[in-house]
Amino acid sequence: MKKMLLIGIGPGHPDYLTIQAIEAMRRVDVFFFLEKAGDGKGELIRIRREILERYVPEGRYRTFTVKSPQRDGSGAYRDGVEAWYRAKADLFVGLIQDELADGECGALLLWGDPSLYDGTLSILKGLLDDGPVAFELDVIPGITSIQALTARHRIPLNRIGEGIQVTTARRLAASDPEDITNTVVMLDSNASFRELAETDLTIYWGAYLGTEDEMLVSGRLGDVAADLAERALRAKAEKGWLMDIYLLRKEDSGD
Amino acid sequence: MKKMLLIGIGPGHPDYLTIQAIEAMRRVDVFFFLEKAGDGKGELIRIRREILERYVPEGRYRTFTVKSPQRDGSGAYRDGVEAWYRAKADLFVGLIQDELADGECGALLLWGDPSLYDGTLSILKGLLDDGPVAFELDVIPGITSIQALTARHRIPLNRIGEGIQVTTARRLAASDPEDITNTVVMLDSNASFRELAETDLTIYWGAYLGTEDEMLVSGRLGDVAADLAERALRAKAEKGWLMDIYLLRKEDSGD
Repeated sequence: MKKMLLIGIGPGHPDYLTIQAIEAMRRVDVFFFLEKAGDGKGELIRIRREILERYVPEGRYRTFTVKSPQRDGSGAYRDGVEAWYRAKADLFVGLIQDELADGECGALLLWGDPSLYDGTLSILKGLLDDGPVAFELDVIPGITSIQALTARHRIPLNRIGEGIQVTTARRLAASDPEDITNTVVMLDSNASFRELAETDLTIYWGAYLGTEDEMLVSGRLGDVAADLAERALRAKAEKGWLMDIYLLRKEDSGD
Repeated sequence: MKKMLLIGIGPGHPDYLTIQAIEAMRRVDVFFFLEKAGDGKGELIRIRREILERYVPEGRYRTFTVKSPQRDGSGAYRDGVEAWYRAKADLFVGLIQDELADGECGALLLWGDPSLYDGTLSILKGLLDDGPVAFELDVIPGITSIQALTARHRIPLNRIGEGIQVTTARRLAASDPEDITNTVVMLDSNASFRELAETDLTIYWGAYLGTEDEMLVSGRLGDVAADLAERALRAKAEKGWLMDIYLLRKEDSGD
């Protein structure tokens, strides 16, 4: 039987790796790197290679790099993602069939945690269910960028008894700011918080968490949104990519 | 200056610790253990001691165990929690004043991640702001029980473009089941999902995640709720405590 491991590596810094992830990496025969188009994305593969050099120094593994299919953003969002997932599924079938021998273990090192806004797990589960290729699947949890964000800002994600929402910039734009108590926004990279600058919300923002380029900003949106958006979009232009995350919070009226 | 570290240790298994947490533990002079009342809770301190023995074998640290204040559940929930937090704040002031010398580093090993449904961080932030005792504060993120749950079930937390809610059993009881897409319920331990057995929701449930007592159950609530509740409450009676977590999901109608 072949095996695939999805290993959460946390949001960037090698110190975020767990003992479980490191021990799993030492059992892997082939690491698959999916190369994304766009300036600067090579940095994400470089960080993964550094993690391997640090934690599996004996280096008894192969690496296999392929171009990742690109999402077509021209049509409806959901259609584009579904087509993109099908292309990725075909890619994974090929990798498991052609690049893994029977009894071998392949792995993908996934940013953050494999369960959170990363389609890889649902694509591989789909392959298990549909059966075009036989393999076992295991998932190793990782530190999420949510946990890195709150730790770096030294804030709890919620206050006594409150709920938490995790959402995307796309969904945020369609929601009522009045419904926000503690809302974490992922997959933005376009400073969508600007649309909420007139609200009474506080933002705790972070980008490139755990790396040497880390940026942290917090404050009332009305005070910080314009300046923060400029800084965020400038960083995106300079590095070629922006991986940011933020918590929007309605502060207690009594504070 | 004195320093306090809040270190997330993940949900139980020593392999969930990160390199960052282990390196932080090696700099600590005093680990504070808060002993909770109730049968079996001593196990939670035993697991922490095992983590220290495994990762700081040279043992150049002190430990200091105190009884944790108890929450008074007789009045309104919020009042009870606030009084409990004040009692804990007084306790921490005493520990920092009396048990930490200048230049020393104290630490609390927190289950899961320090930002998620654990009052310690907000209590210590309150002390920093109010200034009854001077110290520096640092937070080390940990694997949350949410990530452990989804990894063990090998499921994504959300599907394409969907949002996620994290809530408590108390809040779940007051909410409309129709609003559930992907809802993680924490702080239950009383099988509150039974109230939703008539809905069309699927549950992915886990308890004692990462430990030898780990329990995992998933299925349509209507099919599994009664049996699962019985198993959960029996485990709670036998062990003296139940730390469980679950994801409630509305499956795609097309599936």
